[in-house]
Amino acid sequence: MMFNFDKNIEFLNRNNDILTIGELLVDMISADYDENFDSNTYHRFFGGSPANIAINTKRLGVNSSVVSAVGKDGLGKFLINQLEEVQIDTTCIEEVDYATSMVLITKSKSSPKPIFYRGADYHLEYSSKLTEAIKNSKVVHFSCWPLSKAPSRQTIEKCIEVARANKLIICFDPNYHPMLWEKGEDGPEYIKSIIKKVDIVKPSEDDAARLFGKDSHENYIEKFLTLGAQLVILTLGEDGAIVSNGKETVKFETLATEVNDTTGAGDAFWSGFYAGVIEGYTIKEALQLGFAVSAYKLKYTGAVVELPRLERIKEIYSIEGGS
Amino acid sequence: MMFNFDKNIEFLNRNNDILTIGELLVDMISADYDENFDSNTYHRFFGGSPANIAINTKRLGVNSSVVSAVGKDGLGKFLINQLEEVQIDTTCIEEVDYATSMVLITKSKSSPKPIFYRGADYHLEYSSKLTEAIKNSKVVHFSCWPLSKAPSRQTIEKCIEVARANKLIICFDPNYHPMLWEKGEDGPEYIKSIIKKVDIVKPSEDDAARLFGKDSHENYIEKFLTLGAQLVILTLGEDGAIVSNGKETVKFETLATEVNDTTGAGDAFWSGFYAGVIEGYTIKEALQLGFAVSAYKLKYTGAVVELPRLERIKEIYSIEGGS
Repeated sequence: MMFNFDKNIEFLNRNNDILTIGELLVDMISADYDENFDSNTYHRFFGGSPANIAINTKRLGVNSSVVSAVGKDGLGKFLINQLEEVQIDTTCIEEVDYATSMVLITKSKSSPKPIFYRGADYHLEYSSKLTEAIKNSKVVHFSCWPLSKAPSRQTIEKCIEVARANKLIICFDPNYHPMLWEKGEDGPEYIKSIIKKVDIVKPSEDDAARLFGKDSHENYIEKFLTLGAQLVILTLGEDGAIVSNGKETVKFETLATEVNDTTGAGDAFWSGFYAGVIEGYTIKEALQLGFAVSAYKLKYTGAVVELPRLERIKEIYSIEGGS
Repeated sequence: MMFNFDKNIEFLNRNNDILTIGELLVDMISADYDENFDSNTYHRFFGGSPANIAINTKRLGVNSSVVSAVGKDGLGKFLINQLEEVQIDTTCIEEVDYATSMVLITKSKSSPKPIFYRGADYHLEYSSKLTEAIKNSKVVHFSCWPLSKAPSRQTIEKCIEVARANKLIICFDPNYHPMLWEKGEDGPEYIKSIIKKVDIVKPSEDDAARLFGKDSHENYIEKFLTLGAQLVILTLGEDGAIVSNGKETVKFETLATEVNDTTGAGDAFWSGFYAGVIEGYTIKEALQLGFAVSAYKLKYTGAVVELPRLERIKEIYSIEGGS
């Protein structure tokens, strides 16, 4: 496959647009900034990057479905309810005999301190329901999270195989973080073996540094391409992004004007990009829509904000093109 | 060993009075009652039954020390800080590479729904520091919690062995709950094998029913005695307790007049009993002190309340005797 910046992607006719697979979890976030462990009040939030993307894309106006595992408990019910409220298909969410995964985040001016409580999420098992869901979708998306542990790792491997056979676009967020991996395992080496098998990756500079060590932007892009990715979107925070399809490399500027909270900005980018390619925009236009949705999100607090439809985003940020 | 109701326990000369081993964790409790998973605010509390007993006994005026494992994270720091604030010895608290254990409790009028996030607590390993701590103590206390998983199970087994060799009084809370155990394992059978090796047990009626099935109070007591316990304190909530040393069985009435919150009432009972036996009261008097401290705690909200010294409790509840 080759992603031409000035062409749109031709999708097969499928009922569902975006299938996101992986972490669906509760973010438990301290009410106050806390440098000394004295924060006693926490607020519960819907979380998990793929689940955020599913909600965003749905709000932008394309279909999405979430594949994940939650516990048979109140937090699992809360997460499923949140997805159902925006009419996202939850038939591929398994309820398992482990606690719904949670990330406890104590806000800090110096460094935020997450504590990972992983239960249900990595117990996602492959099933024939998943085969059906993949066959019915145009794009499949996942991050490093489910790859960090068995059995969800094997589930993702199987999903990639089935997605490839059924000609989906396979997108991967290489957000490798050592804290999620078993001690002693070479996470970066494993992640590299996965990059070979996917089409689109969107690493941040930090992600790239964790995988390859400190290097130049050009070398990072080259390394992802050499591993086998077809389109590499290297995001640079306020400096925009460098995107390469192996033949052509394009620099994009951020569209952000007002930055209130960066949480979920990456998920918003993915969401705008996905909505764009699904709606028939060219790769270049879809990338601009990614920046536009990200810019919109940055104005508001929270990982998932009330996004308008894609057409409105297009107007606000004066994005050209479209089918 | 034989516990005579009208005699005190002769302890060897040791620096520390009560050594509690096991769960030290965060209780994350919903701010509101919640029947429909919509509670978004949670408050963090110090928790874990043995740790509560350590704080209580310290406040009553005897020495205590806690053996446990917490994570190298903010919640672990919070728990250690709380113990240090009341001058409890924390040198036997290990900081391990797992998240500090947490129990998330969503309050409910129908049934409270705990979700267990176990990380650090069951990774408690035996060490020579622990041998020293046991050799320096008069009483050792633990509950079913650390027995439910390896490696803390083996740590407790070793503690029992060393405590026996060093002539400590070994006290066990047989609060068996299937949710904490691995599926397929016969928890009750294992707990029974532990009861053989301890001196004092304090089951509630529910604990006894979970271990032996529904039966009469007399049969419950007989079963604990037959297994090898030397003193069985069968607590019956507002109906007090039945206590037997195998030769004599005595009925005790509760001293509670005002019940505001039952959380931690059992820990308060243990605490009053321990403070009593350490201070040289007879078994019967110590049991009454247990009821007195429990009654005091019941008036206030929270698992651990600001207890006065034992002498004051004795006055308030007109308990006779003492050394």
